[in-house]
Amino acid sequence: MTDQSASPIHTIAIVGGTGKEGKGLAYRWAKAGYRLLIGSRQAEKAQAAADELHLLLPENAVVEGMANPEAAASADLVVVTVPYAAHRDTFEMLIPFVQGKIVVDVTVPLVPPKVTKVQMPPAGSAAQEAQQILGEGVQVAAAFQNISYEHLLRDEPVECDVLVTGSSKAARAQVLELVKAANLVGWDAGPIENSVVVEGLTSILIGLNKQYGVQSAGVRITGIPCSGGSA
Amino acid sequence: MTDQSASPIHTIAIVGGTGKEGKGLAYRWAKAGYRLLIGSRQAEKAQAAADELHLLLPENAVVEGMANPEAAASADLVVVTVPYAAHRDTFEMLIPFVQGKIVVDVTVPLVPPKVTKVQMPPAGSAAQEAQQILGEGVQVAAAFQNISYEHLLRDEPVECDVLVTGSSKAARAQVLELVKAANLVGWDAGPIENSVVVEGLTSILIGLNKQYGVQSAGVRITGIPCSGGSA
Repeated sequence: MTDQSASPIHTIAIVGGTGKEGKGLAYRWAKAGYRLLIGSRQAEKAQAAADELHLLLPENAVVEGMANPEAAASADLVVVTVPYAAHRDTFEMLIPFVQGKIVVDVTVPLVPPKVTKVQMPPAGSAAQEAQQILGEGVQVAAAFQNISYEHLLRDEPVECDVLVTGSSKAARAQVLELVKAANLVGWDAGPIENSVVVEGLTSILIGLNKQYGVQSAGVRITGIPCSGGSA
Repeated sequence: MTDQSASPIHTIAIVGGTGKEGKGLAYRWAKAGYRLLIGSRQAEKAQAAADELHLLLPENAVVEGMANPEAAASADLVVVTVPYAAHRDTFEMLIPFVQGKIVVDVTVPLVPPKVTKVQMPPAGSAAQEAQQILGEGVQVAAAFQNISYEHLLRDEPVECDVLVTGSSKAARAQVLELVKAANLVGWDAGPIENSVVVEGLTSILIGLNKQYGVQSAGVRITGIPCSGGSA
């Protein structure tokens, strides 16, 4: 774990964490030694997801399930993995529980049925919408939108880099530590306004998956010496 | 050369082609056997660029320099490589010369001095702005925004893929043929609305170049079997 930031991160909440993306991230971070709080609208569902993860994890791993507000309130850093349809309601609910914390938005604002066409909300991206809702007392970052959940629960290397955007360099650096802890390669992709690129890339990757009949399209940054990246 | 599209492409104009990006593309396509027309606001400057390329190219390569309107009028397909400050004027000038043709926009709408922050025009992207200006009689595609010009004039493999967006699948397929002819790897990145991702990616790559003190940051699509891509 890192102590680069002002307050070191020990406990991570994953709001909407019973989905495949949330469980995959929780698995990787619990394995790296973080305490994980899986949040859900129903505490029992969150507990079931935590139990499921315990079967895959070493005995000393800590994963607990609880209601979303309780998870967010008890965590040092909050990750949100919800479908875009639940984005606004989820972030409005989070306001009182995340002040002063870093919140990582994993949401891709897909608009069914045309999920291969980039269609951003009026704020510019889901992450900017999250920042507008939470206000300036919260540092919003965005990451992990391009990773297939299939990859996360496997211990194989993932052939997709993580582009991290965020409202401050410090928040991006903190999230890059978590990328590394998840055994992924991460890059500082700049300010939160750049989130449109990373969120929109998911539509392009879904389009490539459809064209080639695969589920594994990803993206890698090239041309930077191996010492680069948070690998 | 291809004859997949309704009218096969023999002659390519590069409007604003005296810059480094335009000369790099012209070099690669002239080498592949296409007839290249370098356009500039001043015909003499275009001629000088053509002369410069002839020094690097085999004797049978055809590269001519002329004024932008003449180049666009005489070509089967028109590529535009201008700084964003000249984008609107250039496309307005092109209207009468490109009806019924495919126009490929290479422009990245960078807003100095914050070129590492994604800042798109009201149309959503430079490519969508081009489509609005040219109207429905022109098929606009966008490509090559992420390639460093340094790479194009070298005959080494380029470690950056080309994401091709465009207003029709046929236009994208035609541009993918040109990507292949330039000895680059290309991917169909979907409708023109997705151009924001590819144009914006350039700001992220510039940011990475600055962070790591390099000029070579690029992007590769992963997770698709080797038979994929227009490699």
